[in-house]
Formats: sequence, C-alpha cells, structure tokens
Amino acid sequence: MKKIITFGEIMMRLSTPGYLRFVQADQFNVLYAGSEANVAVSLSYLGLPAEHVTRFPDNDFGLAATQSLKRYGVCTDHILYGDERIGVYFLENGSMQRSSTIIYDRFDSAFAHIQPGMIDWDTIMKEASWFHWTGITPALSQGAADVCREAIESARKNGATVSGDINYRRNLWQYGKSARDVMPALIESTDVVVAGIADMENCAGISGDTMEEASIKFMKTFPNTKKISTTIRKSISSSHNKIAAVLWSGKELIQSKEYDLTHIVDRVGSGDAFMAGLVYGMIKKWSDQQTIEFATAACALKHAVAGDVNLVTAQEIEALVCGENVGKLLR
Amino acid sequence: MKKIITFGEIMMRLSTPGYLRFVQADQFNVLYAGSEANVAVSLSYLGLPAEHVTRFPDNDFGLAATQSLKRYGVCTDHILYGDERIGVYFLENGSMQRSSTIIYDRFDSAFAHIQPGMIDWDTIMKEASWFHWTGITPALSQGAADVCREAIESARKNGATVSGDINYRRNLWQYGKSARDVMPALIESTDVVVAGIADMENCAGISGDTMEEASIKFMKTFPNTKKISTTIRKSISSSHNKIAAVLWSGKELIQSKEYDLTHIVDRVGSGDAFMAGLVYGMIKKWSDQQTIEFATAACALKHAVAGDVNLVTAQEIEALVCGENVGKLLR
Amino acid sequence: MKKIITFGEIMMRLSTPGYLRFVQADQFNVLYAGSEANVAVSLSYLGLPAEHVTRFPDNDFGLAATQSLKRYGVCTDHILYGDERIGVYFLENGSMQRSSTIIYDRFDSAFAHIQPGMIDWDTIMKEASWFHWTGITPALSQGAADVCREAIESARKNGATVSGDINYRRNLWQYGKSARDVMPALIESTDVVVAGIADMENCAGISGDTMEEASIKFMKTFPNTKKISTTIRKSISSSHNKIAAVLWSGKELIQSKEYDLTHIVDRVGSGDAFMAGLVYGMIKKWSDQQTIEFATAACALKHAVAGDVNLVTAQEIEALVCGENVGKLLR
Amino acid sequence: MKKIITFGEIMMRLSTPGYLRFVQADQFNVLYAGSEANVAVSLSYLGLPAEHVTRFPDNDFGLAATQSLKRYGVCTDHILYGDERIGVYFLENGSMQRSSTIIYDRFDSAFAHIQPGMIDWDTIMKEASWFHWTGITPALSQGAADVCREAIESARKNGATVSGDINYRRNLWQYGKSARDVMPALIESTDVVVAGIADMENCAGISGDTMEEASIKFMKTFPNTKKISTTIRKSISSSHNKIAAVLWSGKELIQSKEYDLTHIVDRVGSGDAFMAGLVYGMIKKWSDQQTIEFATAACALKHAVAGDVNLVTAQEIEALVCGENVGKLLR
Amino acid sequence: MKKIITFGEIMMRLSTPGYLRFVQADQFNVLYAGSEANVAVSLSYLGLPAEHVTRFPDNDFGLAATQSLKRYGVCTDHILYGDERIGVYFLENGSMQRSSTIIYDRFDSAFAHIQPGMIDWDTIMKEASWFHWTGITPALSQGAADVCREAIESARKNGATVSGDINYRRNLWQYGKSARDVMPALIESTDVVVAGIADMENCAGISGDTMEEASIKFMKTFPNTKKISTTIRKSISSSHNKIAAVLWSGKELIQSKEYDLTHIVDRVGSGDAFMAGLVYGMIKKWSDQQTIEFATAACALKHAVAGDVNLVTAQEIEALVCGENVGKLLR
Amino acid sequence: MKKIITFGEIMMRLSTPGYLRFVQADQFNVLYAGSEANVAVSLSYLGLPAEHVTRFPDNDFGLAATQSLKRYGVCTDHILYGDERIGVYFLENGSMQRSSTIIYDRFDSAFAHIQPGMIDWDTIMKEASWFHWTGITPALSQGAADVCREAIESARKNGATVSGDINYRRNLWQYGKSARDVMPALIESTDVVVAGIADMENCAGISGDTMEEASIKFMKTFPNTKKISTTIRKSISSSHNKIAAVLWSGKELIQSKEYDLTHIVDRVGSGDAFMAGLVYGMIKKWSDQQTIEFATAACALKHAVAGDVNLVTAQEIEALVCGENVGKLLR
Repeated sequence: MKKIITFGEIMMRLSTPGYLRFVQADQFNVLYAGSEANVAVSLSYLGLPAEHVTRFPDNDFGLAATQSLKRYGVCTDHILYGDERIGVYFLENGSMQRSSTIIYDRFDSAFAHIQPGMIDWDTIMKEASWFHWTGITPALSQGAADVCREAIESARKNGATVSGDINYRRNLWQYGKSARDVMPALIESTDVVVAGIADMENCAGISGDTMEEASIKFMKTFPNTKKISTTIRKSISSSHNKIAAVLWSGKELIQSKEYDLTHIVDRVGSGDAFMAGLVYGMIKKWSDQQTIEFATAACALKHAVAGDVNLVTAQEIEALVCGENVGKLLR
Repeated sequence: MKKIITFGEIMMRLSTPGYLRFVQADQFNVLYAGSEANVAVSLSYLGLPAEHVTRFPDNDFGLAATQSLKRYGVCTDHILYGDERIGVYFLENGSMQRSSTIIYDRFDSAFAHIQPGMIDWDTIMKEASWFHWTGITPALSQGAADVCREAIESARKNGATVSGDINYRRNLWQYGKSARDVMPALIESTDVVVAGIADMENCAGISGDTMEEASIKFMKTFPNTKKISTTIRKSISSSHNKIAAVLWSGKELIQSKEYDLTHIVDRVGSGDAFMAGLVYGMIKKWSDQQTIEFATAACALKHAVAGDVNLVTAQEIEALVCGENVGKLLR
Repeated sequence: MKKIITFGEIMMRLSTPGYLRFVQADQFNVLYAGSEANVAVSLSYLGLPAEHVTRFPDNDFGLAATQSLKRYGVCTDHILYGDERIGVYFLENGSMQRSSTIIYDRFDSAFAHIQPGMIDWDTIMKEASWFHWTGITPALSQGAADVCREAIESARKNGATVSGDINYRRNLWQYGKSARDVMPALIESTDVVVAGIADMENCAGISGDTMEEASIKFMKTFPNTKKISTTIRKSISSSHNKIAAVLWSGKELIQSKEYDLTHIVDRVGSGDAFMAGLVYGMIKKWSDQQTIEFATAACALKHAVAGDVNLVTAQEIEALVCGENVGKLLR
Repeated sequence: MKKIITFGEIMMRLSTPGYLRFVQADQFNVLYAGSEANVAVSLSYLGLPAEHVTRFPDNDFGLAATQSLKRYGVCTDHILYGDERIGVYFLENGSMQRSSTIIYDRFDSAFAHIQPGMIDWDTIMKEASWFHWTGITPALSQGAADVCREAIESARKNGATVSGDINYRRNLWQYGKSARDVMPALIESTDVVVAGIADMENCAGISGDTMEEASIKFMKTFPNTKKISTTIRKSISSSHNKIAAVLWSGKELIQSKEYDLTHIVDRVGSGDAFMAGLVYGMIKKWSDQQTIEFATAACALKHAVAGDVNLVTAQEIEALVCGENVGKLLR
Repeated sequence: MKKIITFGEIMMRLSTPGYLRFVQADQFNVLYAGSEANVAVSLSYLGLPAEHVTRFPDNDFGLAATQSLKRYGVCTDHILYGDERIGVYFLENGSMQRSSTIIYDRFDSAFAHIQPGMIDWDTIMKEASWFHWTGITPALSQGAADVCREAIESARKNGATVSGDINYRRNLWQYGKSARDVMPALIESTDVVVAGIADMENCAGISGDTMEEASIKFMKTFPNTKKISTTIRKSISSSHNKIAAVLWSGKELIQSKEYDLTHIVDRVGSGDAFMAGLVYGMIKKWSDQQTIEFATAACALKHAVAGDVNLVTAQEIEALVCGENVGKLLR
Repeated sequence: MKKIITFGEIMMRLSTPGYLRFVQADQFNVLYAGSEANVAVSLSYLGLPAEHVTRFPDNDFGLAATQSLKRYGVCTDHILYGDERIGVYFLENGSMQRSSTIIYDRFDSAFAHIQPGMIDWDTIMKEASWFHWTGITPALSQGAADVCREAIESARKNGATVSGDINYRRNLWQYGKSARDVMPALIESTDVVVAGIADMENCAGISGDTMEEASIKFMKTFPNTKKISTTIRKSISSSHNKIAAVLWSGKELIQSKEYDLTHIVDRVGSGDAFMAGLVYGMIKKWSDQQTIEFATAACALKHAVAGDVNLVTAQEIEALVCGENVGKLLR
C-alpha cells in the first residue's frame, strides 16, 4: 500500500504539569510534535502507512524527535539533519476562565533553514498516495514555502492526492511575504482543504457569511479543490468545549454530530486528529457523511488524550461514532 | 464484637498516572486490591472488625498486599502463602468519551490454586457474625469455587449472615464450568444478595423486566435470600456518572437518592463501597431506607477517592446523606 | 508611589497531591502563604508596590517563606525573626461530594508570640498609602491583637487607608478573649470592610436579614467605614462553585456578575484574591461597579490557579471582566 | 509468645526529595516515625510480636501514624488519642561535605501532654517479655518522664526485660529538669543499656577514657545493668560512613565487624535498627558475639533503606553477617 | 546492508523508583526489555540494522513493547501477536550491602507459547548477516527451545553468523528438560559464544579451572565455535563493581582493560551491552583486542544508563576506550 | 553598604531528572541561571547586597527568571525587557565514565541583542563597590561586548573594584571577532582575574608552563590586575572529582586545601560559587589565604547542591574550612 506523506516542522513541546502557570513550574513535560507530523502519527495509529519529512538539527533533540515518530510507526527515512536548533513551544494549560497559552520559540530552527533541492521529492512521492501540508509551513521562511511548493508539485506529478490545512497564524509570516502572496499558488493544487471562513479570507481574500457561501467562492477560485471542511468549536471555558464539523462536498454542506467535551485533558492537536480522520475516511472511500463523523469523533477523542497526538484506534473512534462504550469501564 | 469475614483474591493494581494511555505510561501507580477485600477495608474504616481470607504467593508482593490490609486494620491472621504468582490488573483511566479500560492478568495466581481443606473455616467462622463473597471467586477456578462453598457452609453452620455480590464477569469462567453450573448452590445459602437483572439472568437463569419482577422470582428460587439490592449507574461519560440504588426488601422496592458524580476521580471499587455500606447498615439494624441511603452515599463518595478502597468515615457518609458539608471547605 | 502594607501570619502549607486523602499521601506539596500576605502578593503581581510585615522563626522555613514573598516582588524589609516555630496548615483537596479539609497547626508560632513595640509601625506607615488586616490576626494571641491595633492606629495617623477582612474563624480565639471583645475597636478605624452577615454578627453583634440591612447598621456603629463588601459563593460541590460579590457603597448595594466555576483547581486564597481586587480598584479610583467587577473576576480566576496566591495579571482579569479570551488557546 | 513493648513519641517526618535543600523544596516526602517505634517495626519485620504505646492527636495524622505501625504488624491496641498536635521533624538530606540537618517541631505534641495514669501498664506488661525506652522520652516533658518511669516499673514487676537507649539530646530537656535529675532513676531498672561514653557522662555523670572503663563504672553505679553496647560511627562525609559496634558483657568488650557504607541512602533510624538487632539476638539467646554481629549488620543495612525503619528480614541480615550476596543481583 | 536478527522474550520491567524496597513502592517505573532485544537496540543505536523476532500478546502491552523497539530503530516486521500474557519482571534496585533483587513472573507468556512453524525463518534469514540467541530462550518452554533451534538452523543455512549468550538460569528450565538436554544441539551451530566457566559446566558439562582450559575443551566439543568470551565482574557492593572481560580467540586469551564502576545507576542489561559490543566489533572485522575493548567499554557505560538498554553511541564508547572525556562536562 | 553588580545573560536551564539521557527524558527540570547571576545569588545568600543587570524577553520566562533572582534577594531594578527569546541550555547529568553534556540554544536571545546606551551604568555604578563580568558576555555578540566594556569603564570611573572570570568558550565567539580581538581591552581594567593557563593563552596570547609563570607575564601585560586565581579540578569521573584552587597574589602562589568530591550532585555553577567566595573574602578584606580557603570550600559545597546556584551560608562554608560538621547529622 502506498504511503501518506506529511511535511512540516516538529518542535519540542514543553508544558507545565497539571494546571501550573509558567512562573510556577519547576518541571516541564517534554515531547516532540508538529501539526503535520501529528497527522502522520494519527494515521499510522489508525493502521495506514505514513511518512513524515522534515529537517532537524543533528543533535540529541533531532534524534529524540525522530524516535518519537518511529515509536508510533511513522517512516522517517527521508528526514534531513543539519545545523541550527530545534524549534520549541511552551504550553501552559488553562482551566475554566483561565485561558491556555502557547509561547513559540521556533525562529531560526533547522526546519526554517530548509532550502529547495534538499529533498528528493520525486523519490518520495513515487511511493505516495497522499500528501498533506498545512499553512504553517509556508509561513515560516521562504525556504520552507518553496520546499512546500516543490512537494505539492511532485505529489501531483506522481498522482498523489493533496490535502492542505489552511491554518492562518498571524504571528508567523515574518520573513517578508504575506499569506496572500504565497498561499494561493499552494492551494491551487490542493484537493482537500481544511479551512474556516477566516482562513479563506486571510489566505486567499475569499469572504462569505456562511461556510457554504465561502466554500462555493473558494472552489470557483481554486477549481482543483474537491472538498472543504472545518471543525466548529464552541468554547464555554478552557475546561469545556463543544466540537462539531462541516464538510462542503462541492454540492452540499454535510454536518457532523456535536460532542460535549466537558473535562478537556489536552486540546492541542485536536485539529490534526480531525485532519487525520478526514484523510482516513477519504482513503477508505467512505461517504462524506461517514468521513466527517469519523473525523469529528477522532477530534473529540483527542481532547481526552494527553499530548499532541491522537493515540486512539480506528475501533475506538468507530465505537464513539456509534455511541458505544461511552462512560463504560471496559474489562 | 464478632467479625465480618470476606474471602477472595487480591491483585496488584497497576494504573497509569493521570489520564495517560497504557502506551504512554512510563510509570504505573501500584496498590493491592480486590472486590471482597475492598469491602473488608471499607468496613474496618467504618469502625467494624473485619478479616480477609485469601491466598498469596510467598514473596514481597504477597507481603505488600498483606500490609495494605493491615494498614487499614483488617485482620490477616488466616491468609495463606504458597507458590505461584500474584494476580495483576492494569487500569487505564478514561476521560469524557474515552472509556476506562482494565486488562486482567490473573490466571494461575496463588489464589486460583487454592484447594478445599487449606483453610480452617470453622475456626474462622466461630468468631464471625457475617461472611461476604462475590461471583468473581467461583469464576476463577474449581478450587476457588469449592473453597467459597466451604466458607458459605461453615458460615451458616456457625450462624453468620451471608452476603454475596453476584457479579457476573463474562471473561472469567474459563475452567470448564459456567456460572449457571456453580452459582445457584452458592446463592442458595446467601441472605443478602447484590445483583442486577443481568446478573440474575446470567447466574441463575432468572429474568424479569423490572428489578421488582426479577427479585420476586429470585426469592422464590432462593428462599433463604432476604434482601436484594443493586446500584443504578447512568454513565454520561467516563468523567460524569449518576448513581442511585434500589433494595428489594421482600415486600417493596426502596429507592435511594441519586447523586450527580460530575468529576470522577476513580470509580473502581465503588460497588464494593456500596456493598460495605449495605453490610454496615444491616449490622447496625437500620431500616432498609436508612441502609440504602447510607450505602449509596458511601458509593458516591468512593468516586471521589483515588484507589480501590473507600477511605471515608461513617461520619462523612452520614453528613452526605443529610446533605451537609457538600462543597464546604472544612477547617 | 506609596506602598500597600499587609500584616499577618504566614504559614507553611502542606497539601496532598491531586485528590489524595491525608492518610494516603506520602508526599505533600509545600508552599508558604497567609491571608494578608496573599493580598500583598496579588497586589504586587498587579503592579502595585506591596510590603508584608510578619514574624518568622529564625530558621530555614522563615527564610523560605520570606523568599516566597520576595520572589513575587513583595517588600520584606520589616519582617522580624525570632524563636519558636512556623505555623503549619495541612490541606486535603476535596472532589465532588467529598469536602476539602484544612487542619491547622499554628499555635505557639513565632507570629503568635509577637508583642507590641516589636515593630516600628510609624517608619513603615510613612511610606504607606494603604494598610490591610484580617480578623485572623487578633484571634491568634493577645500580642497579635495588640500589634494589629498598633498598626491600624499608626496607619490612620499617617494617612493611610485601612481595609479589614472581618473573617470570623470559630476555632481560633483561644487565648481568653472573644471576637466581640476585640474586633470592634479595630473595625472602628477601618475604612473598607469585607464581611458577610455572619461575620458582622460574630464580630460586632450586628445582625440583619440582608446584606443591605446589616451594612446600614454596621456603618451606623462604625461611622468610619466607607465600603462594605463580600463574596457570595454557591457551593454545588467541591469541584463546582459559583461566585459573585456585592458592595455596599454607603448608598446602594452593587452586584457583580456571577461566574460559574466548573472545574476548581484550588479555592484557597480566593477571598484574598477578591480583597486584592477591591484594593486595586479603589487605589485606581475606579467606580464601585468597576471595582467589584474586577475583584470578582480576580476571585474567579484564582480558582483556576494552584496554590494560595493569585498569579494573574491585571490584563488577564480585565479580559475576563470583558468576557474576552475565555476558553481560548492564546498563541 | 509474649510481646516486646516500646514506648515513645512518633512524629511526622517531612524530608526534602533527593538532595534538595529546605529552601528549594516544593514537595516533602511524608512518613511517621520515632526512635522507639522504629525498634518495634524492625522487630516485627524480624518476626517477633511487638507493640508500641504512644499518644496521638485525634485527627488524620494520628490515624495515619497508627496505620504506618499497623502496616508493618506492630500492635497499636493501647495507643491513646487526645487533643493537641502531632510532633513534626523536618529532614534535609546532606551529601558529601554538606551535612544533613534535622529541624524539630515537637513541642506541645499530644505525646508531650501524656500524664501518669493514662496508660494501664500492668495490663500491657502482663503480655510482655521485653520493654524498651529511650532517653528522648524523659527529655520531652515531666509527664512523659513520669509515664516512662511507670512503664519501667510495671515491666520489672511483671518480669519483662528492660532496655534503654540512653540517647542524650542537648536541645531537648527544656521543661526544667536536666538529664542527670531524671535519668539515673530510670537507668536503675534497665537491664540492657545502649550508651556511648558521652551519654554516660551526660545522663549519669559517669566518665571514662575508654568504653571499657566507663562501662565498668556504669555497672557499679547501676548494678541491674547486664549489658552495655554502642555503635561506633566514622563519618567520612554525609555520603560515606563506617559503622561498627561494641558490647560490654560485664566481663569483656566484644567488637563487631566494621562495615564500609559508601553510598548512604538514609542514615536516620540506623541506631534504632541496631537496637532492634540487639533485642532480637538477646531474645533468641544468642552469644554476645552473635548478637553484636547481627545488630551491626542490621544497622549497616538500614543505611541502604529509605525512611526511618529498617525494612529488612532476619535472613537478609544473616546473609550479610556471613558476607553472602553482597553486590549480587538476586534473581 | 544485511541485518542482525535477535530472537527472545521481551518482558514488561517494573522497577521501584530510587532505592525503595518492593513493599515501600507506590509507583513502579515501566519499560519493556529482554536480553536479546537489548542487544538489538544496542546495535541499532550503534548504527547497524537490527531486527528482533518475538511473540507478544495482542494487547496494549504487546503494542507498547513493540513501540519501544521501533523507537530505537529496531525492525519489528516479523513479531507475532497472539493470546496469553506479557511476561513481567520486577526489579528492586539495591544499594551498598543491600542486594538488588529481580522477581520474575514470566510463565505462560505469549512468548512461552510460541511453536515451531509460526515464524518463517528463511524469509527473515535471507536478509540477515548475523543471528543472536541466548540460553534464556530454550529454558522457557519446549516450544521456545524448538523455535530457537529452527532459527539457528535457518541462520546457518542462509550463511549468517550465529552468536549465543549461554546464560544459565537455574530458576528457569521448568518444562521437564534440563539445560544439558537441550543446549548442546544449539551450541553446536553457534560461532560466537559468550559463556563463563559455570555456564559451560551447566550447559554442556564442560569444566575447567581457568577460562583458557574450559574454552579449549569447549571448542573441542563444539568445533564450530570460533570465539568464546565473557565478562569478569568483581562485586564490591550493589553500588560499586569492577568490570573487565576476556576473549578466547581459539589461540590465546585476550584481556580487556578493567573499569571501576563506583556509582552504578543500573547494571541490568550490561551483559547485553557487552554482547552488542562484541557483535559490533566482529561485524566491523576489528581485531580481537579492539573488539573486546569496545565491548567492555560498552558494558561499563551501560552501568551509567538507566533501564535495560545501552543508549550510547559508538563515538561515546570509542572515546572511553581511548580514555577521553571521562569526567568532563561536554559543552 | 554599596552593592556588588554583576552583568550577563541568564538562561532557562532544562535538565533531565536523575541520570536520564536526553532521549529518555519526558520531563525536564527547569530553572533560570547564568554564570554572573549565579555569583550575585551566591553573594546575596552570603549576606552581601547584590544586583544583577541583564536583558530578558518581555514574556513569562523573562518574568520567571527575574523572580528567581528576587527570591534569593538579588536586586533586579535595572533589568531590561524587550523582544526576542530567552536563551536556553539543556543539561544531561553524567555518571561515572559517562560524561555530562550541555547543549546550548542561546543565539538571538534578548541578551545577545543588547546595545550600548540601553543601560544607564553611571546610575548603577554610583551605588556599587564591585563589578563582576565573565568572558562569556563579550563572546555572545558585538552588542554584549560593547555593553560589557561600558560597564567596566563606568565601574572604574565610579571607584568600584572590577573582577572578571576569563572563561574561554570555543563554541561561542561566532559574531566575527575572536577572544584575542576583544578581551585584552576588557582585562585591562580588571582588578581581580579568574583564569587558568589556557584561558590566558586563548584570551590574551599569554602562555606559561606553570600558573606562576603565566600569572607573572599576565600582570606585566595587564598592570591593573592585582590578583589572579583559578580552581584546579581533577576529574576521576563524572561522579567523583577533586577540587582545589590557587591564587597569585602578585608575589606568591597561595594554595588551598583540596576537597575530595566523591558523590557529586551538580557541578554546574561551581566555578561561580568559587568566584563569589573570592569576592566575599576580598570585600571582607581577609588575607589571601583565608580568601582562597573560603572560596574553595564554597566551590566544594556547591557540588552537593542541586541547581546552578550555591545555596549555602557563610557559616556553612566557614565550618567546612575548619573541618567542622563534615558527615554530621545536625539536629
């Protein structure tokens, strides 16, 4: 079976234990994660062959990050190692009315210094059925944007489906280009887009009052796009959210069930869990409704798992879609 | 005052800290617990003299398990030590829509190898006012079933009240007999039965649409049974349950208050906490209503205590029955 | 800018991790806190100059407690060191229907042995714009009551505003005087009083069916008092409270918004967080409505912060007053 | 078999984890221990029936301390519960040239408030073959000294052997009497004395240049004393000690082997481990040489066990006496 | 490059933190390890392609154990999953004169139930240059012994070098055969043997007063054996060992440098680290002297690494062989 | 009393717990430290007024680092806050033959972006009696080198003594200048220099076979230098070092006692502890011999304290100089 390829930065995540604030912590929990790699791990956990491509510093943290991918079965054969540092992000877990906070320290990372030509995409894409990228990568550096474009082009040339999570982050985009300068050319060749209304506006200048309206305009601008999807989060507090999702099939707006997330363990990576669910359903050639239900249930379960990656099985997600086992003590 | 005797296996419980999944954990919390022993510890904590009888391997884990009983005042004078291993169970604590999971590793334990004649029940029962067993024990091995029967017979001969928590576990019963082969003879001599409708069906082939209907049939089949009780759990999620209980007094179905368990700390052992509450109320010769309220409040409080055993005092339970102190900061 | 001076005992706080009961714990979390000092730390965190005056034993625990004040910017220049011990309090964190419990071990502390004349209040108050005390201090010992009176008198003499949190604790007051013997003379010179109806009754024999009624009587008895305020807590369970507040301005009863505290991390010190918010608003010369909203939001946020002190910024509190950021992941 | 009775205070021990200094710690390890109780636990672990008599506050810490005795099999039937507090001691574990430090906070404890007549010693001593006390108890309060004397007298009357660890602590003895006022009358009736030369001088005014010389004088003054023993510690650093012991049999000075303690885990309670070894050997009626070798090996092993109590078996101690298993990985 | 294949059981290792005894621990550290897999991980860490073959239960612990191999780059493609349990071993870390202890609970594991024909060895060995087994495997069950023989035969047929660590464990061998019944046929086809004099005696009835004498006899009996090697450990205490090694080349006995291991972190797996060093040197076609020095340095470094596996690089081992960096702070 | 001013970068230190390797850790211990700030904290702990000047990012990590200075009494009034990141260093604690490793991630920190004119040195130095810098600062960036020079010049102008720890780090100096380009001008105005022979060579091209020879040449080149001192470390292993020091007084080479550091807890910051001891002795106007003994004893004790800063009192250091208390249990 051909692989799903993901491409993007992996950072060291340093989070305060429990509900400690940054200034209170004298220990940080450590793990290695990144949006696209989270999708790869999730897909691998669901049983599909996944490979992540990135660039690390050639030190023990690049090694540890690689190990964290290998551990969950993600192929790491084409990861590059070079100079510079590993990107870092710090997470303070909120509670109730106190917000969660992330402080990034990712500039000048080994990944940001990636350059076109460093990766032999055609070799990789020959073994690929799917390629996934996010809007974070082209926001990091000119080099990262260029390599992302290389990857997308190689994917299409080699017949892989392309998905992109258009994830607009205002604080990135500091290398002299704006999202609107760079993103359209990447979206152009992307089959499956995850984007909310604001993302479409920020990345492609497409506006709309409803998801349906914006999606229709979006597909006109980007005729290669076949599906547009997004999660809909209601944030009652840091501890309590509700999550649902919609998918624009090109013809209709399909809605998922909504989940009540009353005791959130860790919401970071829940969008990536959703993304992985979408890819999974589409690769399995499920109906749009089945796919969006699976992806939303995957996203919901992620909130109950510590860390960035969604360590749940397809069986567990399917049980949730069916409403089985909820609140049970499985023996 | 005469003792309450309990009999059954004690296992090493290994649980993941916080909400970590099994594959994420690099530490397990360790304690020693078992359904019947949990009842003994609970009763000891409530101020009654309790003794637990079991069989352990003659190694540091049998010793540590014995210490965990002694610590809370349970008499361990008739525990046997022999070859073989300690049974183990692994607990992954769920959250929200993610279920809790228990993996048992209890076959071939020192307890499963217990044989009739090993325990001098008459000596023990001479000092006993009550004997408690559960449906787990006869499910483990022929030897365990036989010794359980010895104990019940000796209890009756010596005038002790017998209670049994008919707790049908499909995954046990692997030694060639079914629950319906073995259980009726044990229930026969049991005064106080804890059983839900499904347990009555699985253990004795007695069915009914309501607790009342099933209980009436049950008491016809087992005329020695004087009370039948069960908890009624509504599982909104792994984090949020509601708990109430009913008791069939032989004449009427008595209902307890329902408790809203909104932030569950640990639900394992909550049935044992309920059982201990029932025994306590009956030994105190309380009314059925008082007894079921006390037992249900004990069960509710257990959900707020980490570990298998219900480390709460009679005073704390009574305060909850009266609705006192809830949400208070007691200084 | 002149300082806010607080005066009172700081204890070592020893709390069980997570939801462990006292008898289960083999580790205690350690920190140093006290009601008045919590106000000082909170004000310092909000950006105002604060100083705490107290007496410690001259050992490593007095040193560590001093460091915990310095760390958050509170001036410790006039702290005394002497013989005797540091007071201790033990905290068991409740959950759901299981109450939280505090066991005090504070008698014979270095602070309880404080004597009039030990502190040069006039030097301190010359630099002060505000002085804050609570009803805990005069309850501890004759010496503490006397020194509290010295401080209040010096504050007034030097033109500082005086606030007092009339916090009646029945278990204190063991040195031969009652609250009604001692408190009126202290309240006499206090401009801003935090007190509920029960506190007014217990400390000054003033009763009333409503906050308004009691406050009117209170101000008649104590004509120097300009504002009376109190929080209103609804305790659904140890895990779930609702909090609001009222302020009697002398003319009208001003109500704050109510906050739903659904997943309490640590409620200890939330009254002190409220007090600090009141002082902050009054020093900033905000309207009563602005002040009570700020103080209540500060109090609400404290429930999401571990430990006694409210490590939140003015910006975070103001965002909550405006309903911004709630449930957001701030990047 | 008759019991060994020990009598003395049990404190809450709060120690910093690893090698943290007091001011660095934000967690303390918690356990409950006291010199005489350590002897009881050790003897119980060695397989002898032991009972500890003390007085606790009637709160969760008195309960937890009782549980810590029960856990290791020590009888707690005659423990008293009353007002006041539990004594506390704080331990900072040294390393290399940095000394270990203990800060006591034990004044006004429930034990210090014990009074003659509170304990029915004759009932206890009827079941006793041995009674053990230390010089800490009479140093705490007049009441404790008086009750200690009651106990010794009852022990002798009932035919129990009496041992006393004359453990002079300069910082105690603050209730108006000196060691020389109180101790001689207690030593008078003590069969087995553990004392170094300095202890003999401080408690009984007996001096000598050598252990032999001092012991001869001591036995002249206290003709009931049959054996005098002490450990000899060489402190190279906090991490590295050497330990040996001597025993004056009345006729000759018997020397033990010396152990090189190169990586000390916890030295607190090692004297109590030695004491328990002495009592064990004497109860077993071993030769003096056998006894002192066993006691010294027990003392050596204690340095490798965390906490105050010597959780090692007789078999492990005997193996060390024989030089077996040292450095082995036992499978 | 062709792979090194290892075959054997992987267990869950549960160890007490720090120097706690089993009865003191309320947490266990968890990892997954086994002698042969440790060799595979070590070789993978040294940069060689390694694959481990074993059988796991088809549950989360089999999954977690597989992940722990993948993490460090070991191929897991031919691992089987089936019924039964994962073997467990418990480790209590000794200190000074207190011995370390391992309690095994490995009977009836999924691995012990392996049967001939389950593994397609020829497919595996076609890609292999080396196969490694130990004396533990044939001791576990008839099935394990048979499959080990299958593997050795397939290895030879496919031209792979065979190494065997003749590791006699008296407590295993409980299925009715003795080591001398089973081992000779396996040693017969083994090129590189790790064995001490006692192992040769126990497994093949070959005795000798010196390593040289025994090795000469051994090679006569097993003419296919080309090298015999063993570590020489001097155990001063649990904390302090010395380690060296010898290698019989067929002609001469080559000695390594001796390392003084003064502060042992974890000695478990140090023999496997040595074994991996031997294999590494031989695959690199180093001289016997170079090989034994590398293997011994690897073994020494393992004592400074927590866990069973030797997470050190070839560069670190080579630096130690040269005496570089010892005691340095590398920046 | 006038202050000691220190100037330099403070980093977040992230270290693996116990002896875990970087790739094994899933928690890092967090603290904030830097060579010059360590000197300030140490001096403050010794009772002298100290102030640290640096530049932090204006985020929670700059805040936390400031708090860690305040906590130990260091004045932070002139710290700057701006853009960019906090420097980070990662520490893996070695053991025995396994080396300790530090990985720096400090480029582009807020401190490295400091520029001349940002700090009003004259205001600071008016209150200063001493200024301390190290060779790390001028190695970080042109701006840092320039500001260091500003500080030294202002110190001299205002009559403060200047000390410099010439600490050559090959991996720094990446902004286009070499140590020899920059350092001589800074050393020029430095009264007290800490430097080994290699440092003198690398920073000023001064060589010599002995400390005496090199020091004589050094003082000829830099006639303002009055004292040169250095520690002499013998590294037996990561766990075991010996430490002594020498001081060239201008006339003679004074030697300190040597300490045997047999169980190192944390060696990072031991040079800074030495430096603080030197400054302390000189400010106290002790003899050179007294000073070097105090500084060396301070350095030795630091190895027994976790973290970068030497949390020991003058009294503890003096006791070690006198050989008192070593290996004692202080009660």
